[in-house]
Amino acid sequence: MAARKSTPRSKAAAEPKGRPRIDVEKLEPAARKTVGRLAGLAAGVLDQVDGGRNPSVAIPTRSLANTFYDEKRKIVQLGDEKIERTFFNISMAKKFMQTFLVADACTELIASGKTTSIRDLYYMTKHTLGETRSNTFEEQEESDPIIEDLEVTVNSLREELHLFASNKGSMAGELTLVDAGDTIDLRRVGSGGWSVPSIVESDVIQFKKCDAQYVLLVEKDAVWRRFNEDKYWKKHKCIIVHGGGQPPRGVRRLLRRMNEELKLPVYVLVDNDPWGFYIYSVVKQGSINLAYESMRMAVPGARFVGLSSFDRDRFALPDNVTIRLDDSDVSRTKQMLGYKWFDKPQWKRELDHMIKSGVKLELEALSAKGISFITEEYLPRKLKERDWLE
Amino acid sequence: MAARKSTPRSKAAAEPKGRPRIDVEKLEPAARKTVGRLAGLAAGVLDQVDGGRNPSVAIPTRSLANTFYDEKRKIVQLGDEKIERTFFNISMAKKFMQTFLVADACTELIASGKTTSIRDLYYMTKHTLGETRSNTFEEQEESDPIIEDLEVTVNSLREELHLFASNKGSMAGELTLVDAGDTIDLRRVGSGGWSVPSIVESDVIQFKKCDAQYVLLVEKDAVWRRFNEDKYWKKHKCIIVHGGGQPPRGVRRLLRRMNEELKLPVYVLVDNDPWGFYIYSVVKQGSINLAYESMRMAVPGARFVGLSSFDRDRFALPDNVTIRLDDSDVSRTKQMLGYKWFDKPQWKRELDHMIKSGVKLELEALSAKGISFITEEYLPRKLKERDWLE
Repeated sequence: MAARKSTPRSKAAAEPKGRPRIDVEKLEPAARKTVGRLAGLAAGVLDQVDGGRNPSVAIPTRSLANTFYDEKRKIVQLGDEKIERTFFNISMAKKFMQTFLVADACTELIASGKTTSIRDLYYMTKHTLGETRSNTFEEQEESDPIIEDLEVTVNSLREELHLFASNKGSMAGELTLVDAGDTIDLRRVGSGGWSVPSIVESDVIQFKKCDAQYVLLVEKDAVWRRFNEDKYWKKHKCIIVHGGGQPPRGVRRLLRRMNEELKLPVYVLVDNDPWGFYIYSVVKQGSINLAYESMRMAVPGARFVGLSSFDRDRFALPDNVTIRLDDSDVSRTKQMLGYKWFDKPQWKRELDHMIKSGVKLELEALSAKGISFITEEYLPRKLKERDWLE
Repeated sequence: MAARKSTPRSKAAAEPKGRPRIDVEKLEPAARKTVGRLAGLAAGVLDQVDGGRNPSVAIPTRSLANTFYDEKRKIVQLGDEKIERTFFNISMAKKFMQTFLVADACTELIASGKTTSIRDLYYMTKHTLGETRSNTFEEQEESDPIIEDLEVTVNSLREELHLFASNKGSMAGELTLVDAGDTIDLRRVGSGGWSVPSIVESDVIQFKKCDAQYVLLVEKDAVWRRFNEDKYWKKHKCIIVHGGGQPPRGVRRLLRRMNEELKLPVYVLVDNDPWGFYIYSVVKQGSINLAYESMRMAVPGARFVGLSSFDRDRFALPDNVTIRLDDSDVSRTKQMLGYKWFDKPQWKRELDHMIKSGVKLELEALSAKGISFITEEYLPRKLKERDWLE
């Protein structure tokens, strides 16, 4: 990239060789916004080149030290720290080039209305450099962090860059939505439910008729199917969703959108173990690893409806369905007691009681009281008695 | 269980305490058949009791030694070897009891029209024995093999026993079906597709309007989405399905049903590596581990459309997208050359060429030629030139 000082460049989308110029006006508003940000990134660098300066990009730092819990917003967030990635710097030149290769590929994806996986993006952007034996990327481990850099730098989720993760999670209930142009009535999606896509931004998914009064996130696929088979969502006018364990980004983003746009409260039903608490915690305030996403994915008002370690007595569960806590369970639970977002009397009581009791419980343990005990007695009673934690 | 010699018992479904007698006549035909088989198992044992004999059940042996490749049917099958599980035998009494606990729980599930996970079944059947500290099952590792025993003994898939595995896999295309009473038009299932349930027997899933000419199984979720986004199934009048890697039982069973009932040929598109070959092989003739399922799940006519290691030259793929074979790849490929079902000249040529070339290829590697190369050029040409292996 030779510095050209004479003719200043337009700030519109860059025009690579062999590819038609992108007609930004023809794009959907969401796509236009993201392409605008990517083009802005490129234009900024071209300005530096035109001004004879060393091209550089300021990238927010994704580190624990640059992460904080925002007490007011109740979410984990990224701080203001940034690093400069410059072109004329031996240790940074390759990453600089990679950043723009990825930005260019994402621009192409958005402009053509296509989406793809991060694995595919790696192959799309992998080229051998000139006559050398070096490649733009040797392994996907090199392109994945560049994607995260780009997300924070242009303040767009990877889904807005048209990159998807694995589909995981299903949904059913009192809501009709449009998914990629197809109208889906979530009251008629069969036994497996609607497969929640990874990309659920408003240009792909639009909400239509909603008769639900709340959203229930169930940790496990298998337990979700009990709720679906028993048509819990119909009886209780709600939406049921699972994320196959830790909910993937698509499910989290959709929870957030339903909470924000449809004004539906979100209830979380997980195993009574540290992993269950962690799932709830990530849904509610985001995670340290992906703090830059919290603003778009966290649901600070989410409520934990169980399993609570007090449920064992409250619902007279037999002793033989409990599982002994091991050392790592105890140490993870103690670690949680140290997090600011668990620093509330009710959570201290909950976590202390679990450690004291020495056991954990799976959702399936409720089946010892009957196959539909969870849908017919457990959850209705918890909700009726407002027996949840926040 | 005391031996009662006087009054012979009815052969109808057993009637446990506290549970209403099952009205077999009211069940769906499929459910009636399975309940009949479970009741038959119980009745056989009760006859032995009435006759003063040691109650016993003959269980087909699930071992490599009792597995063979049926050259005529072209599937891996279980042989005739059986073991007798008897009640009055210290090493077998507990398993005998467990077999009937599981059979009883499955009968209850079927009779109540409910389905559940194998984890849940473990909790449902776990009880503490009398005043002892012993439980019917200590861990799920004890109940899972009992389920497999029961499947082979009463010749019913676990799905027919109303037990499901994880949902994995999606489908879209030129087919309308009914899933748990909901009509699903697979031409309008949005970006994530219809989530293929674990239980796809004819009492749950019924095929309606089919305009497809073939079924395409794609190994990977992410690649399947390229096909869905490009509406490949619409352009080429087909059904596209993926199983998120090795297809789960629900996907395999549905492939078989579409092949058998809708007379659709099945094409398999996988990575060019031993794992891809293995996926194809399990779809086609079943696996050694689950040989007893082949009869209901294998698709002996399935065709391998790629990736072939000859595709690299045929489609001029760049060198930098290949991945070097490691030692385990080579030894697994050599192992495959020893399987009877790969003992064909075309497969020898394919596998030999892969070892000789020293590299493998992922489906995503085709994206180096353009994001929709796989849907617009690669597969159409392969099918047009009938460039597949069987």
